[in-house]
Amino acid sequence: MKVNVIGVGHTLFGKLDLDIGSLMYEAGKQALEDANISIEEIDAVYIANFSSSFAEQIHLPAVFASKFNVNKEITRVESACASGGLAIKEAVISIASGLYGKVLVVGVEKMSESSQPADIIARAASKNERSLGMTFPSLFALMARQHFHCYGTTEQHLAEVAVKNHRNALSNPFAQFHKEITVDDVMKSKMVASPLKLLDCAPITDGAAAVVMQSSETNSSVRLLGIGHNTDAIELFKRPDITTIPTVSRAAEQAFKMSQLVPKDIDVIEVHDCFTIAELIEIEDLGFCKKGDSKKIMEEGRSEVSGDMPVNPSGGLKAKGHAIGATGVSQVVEIVKQLRGQASNQVKGARFGLCCNIGGAGSSAVVSILSGE
Amino acid sequence: MKVNVIGVGHTLFGKLDLDIGSLMYEAGKQALEDANISIEEIDAVYIANFSSSFAEQIHLPAVFASKFNVNKEITRVESACASGGLAIKEAVISIASGLYGKVLVVGVEKMSESSQPADIIARAASKNERSLGMTFPSLFALMARQHFHCYGTTEQHLAEVAVKNHRNALSNPFAQFHKEITVDDVMKSKMVASPLKLLDCAPITDGAAAVVMQSSETNSSVRLLGIGHNTDAIELFKRPDITTIPTVSRAAEQAFKMSQLVPKDIDVIEVHDCFTIAELIEIEDLGFCKKGDSKKIMEEGRSEVSGDMPVNPSGGLKAKGHAIGATGVSQVVEIVKQLRGQASNQVKGARFGLCCNIGGAGSSAVVSILSGE
Repeated sequence: MKVNVIGVGHTLFGKLDLDIGSLMYEAGKQALEDANISIEEIDAVYIANFSSSFAEQIHLPAVFASKFNVNKEITRVESACASGGLAIKEAVISIASGLYGKVLVVGVEKMSESSQPADIIARAASKNERSLGMTFPSLFALMARQHFHCYGTTEQHLAEVAVKNHRNALSNPFAQFHKEITVDDVMKSKMVASPLKLLDCAPITDGAAAVVMQSSETNSSVRLLGIGHNTDAIELFKRPDITTIPTVSRAAEQAFKMSQLVPKDIDVIEVHDCFTIAELIEIEDLGFCKKGDSKKIMEEGRSEVSGDMPVNPSGGLKAKGHAIGATGVSQVVEIVKQLRGQASNQVKGARFGLCCNIGGAGSSAVVSILSGE
Repeated sequence: MKVNVIGVGHTLFGKLDLDIGSLMYEAGKQALEDANISIEEIDAVYIANFSSSFAEQIHLPAVFASKFNVNKEITRVESACASGGLAIKEAVISIASGLYGKVLVVGVEKMSESSQPADIIARAASKNERSLGMTFPSLFALMARQHFHCYGTTEQHLAEVAVKNHRNALSNPFAQFHKEITVDDVMKSKMVASPLKLLDCAPITDGAAAVVMQSSETNSSVRLLGIGHNTDAIELFKRPDITTIPTVSRAAEQAFKMSQLVPKDIDVIEVHDCFTIAELIEIEDLGFCKKGDSKKIMEEGRSEVSGDMPVNPSGGLKAKGHAIGATGVSQVVEIVKQLRGQASNQVKGARFGLCCNIGGAGSSAVVSILSGE
């Protein structure tokens, strides 16, 4: 399979004045310019968007067509917060089919238009669990509690994830937050669902990210070596062990197999830290350390940009922001920049990068592996 | 490209007690049984669903995984009312890529849980037009008015579409309405948006439809010969001529080219009659007659099941029902049954069939052509 990312685009993340169509347009236009091609040369467009309820606009393919003043094959895909990764995957499949040459992927979310975004986000969980009062913070809090119980992870370790990601975002021009925080700030921030406090949680974000893909290489292209995808039961209570996200392990296994690489080959990693605990669980489930050992990685500073397995140099969902449908695409944009040597928080000599994008409490996952060589 | 439909499934259409997960399960299970394979043999699932707002459930891939108690690659696609056709297309692409062997497509919508379904449906139109008070009945009413003005089509012709489709649904066990109506009934039904009356409009429907596809043939398989897809600007006011739906013409051209057939080869047709005028416009734009001549087809009875170009033998969206995300898949189910000689309202000797599924006021369209030979 030969698939290359030949252009990337990214809007600011945060509370923005742009409407959902303008967000798609801005990111898409940047990616096309970066690839040095026109929208007319694009054969198909995949749009990732989590919920049409925030901005009360369904039918984004037609909104895209209006904004770019084109008619094309345009498709929206969704699997909760993994929608962005899924759009990348559908683009990969479509190029592999030989039906399309050049494909544009745009991930977008316009959350700030809704007065009740948390209610809309909760719809990605099961009705059954919601009827019992569960929310995503409480589902991830349960996972954290169990992880603490089984492996000795602590609130301090979680806080260190937030501190690292806020520090990483300082140099990212697209990040929602440019504010250094301390472990003490996290520990003293408002309790959301014990042990998760406000500064353990990703924010509500508007934004879009885009990539252009094709089968052949260019001077600045980055190869997509492997991609894995898995979907599992929506209910957390159906998971035998809630300290792991099995979809992540399965998607990673598939992506590593396709790329013929192993975890120690990876130089830079973007994971889905919707809550700080998620970053630690994913590092383990992706195979970067043994189950329960992510706390040691934090203690040893290995996931810092200067460490041997830098995680979320972009600032992650925590500090870069989490424009849901955009997130999986934004991760790929960051890794492409890292592998080109053009990242705002560059990991020195990065050759191989990995993105892990999950949906819900991990019922969906997409893992992709890219190479700058 | 070798793609075959090897199994089909369909729930009742109407106001149903089943929740959205159970609807997917019922249609999916039927399709698997019809294909004589198990869910474990399926490599990937594509789910078509228009809006998660009706049933307040996003993340349907994970709901599907729960219902079938499996983990798999599962993706939801959406482009308004063309979502079903789009899921079929993504399945075709994925099989063509060689990445998957067997793929299950499930289209579903659970509309009756919402107290304001029309408000949710309206989100598939542009915010701009909505702010001016436009609704889908009024957009299609404008198209009808212009068609009347340019081509002499009348309210009587529209009424005859509803009468035909209600008659066709009488023998369809899955149809929402089993009620014969007269032209007089239509003319006297409540005005919705002049000239469209209540009996010119498709209903609010719960339901699901499913197909299993693979590259190789079986004893009862039906070949998918061609598929076309196009997306255009969301605003009706951007269309130079509102008596046509350009996405339909473009998607049809692509599907006919891929299948190496022409309109006169087609023996049975399912079109997207969300409003009666849509059936007439689509017949023209698909190339079955000249622009403006669909009224003659009605006058001559050519689109009856006994005619030479039977349209909507299933009862169409008007009488079978319009469970939005299911509709494009339901059309394929009907055509597969027709080509197997197993339809409830069988077109004698049907060898080639065509489905036309549109989204919004025609800003999206998917056309597929199937062969029983």
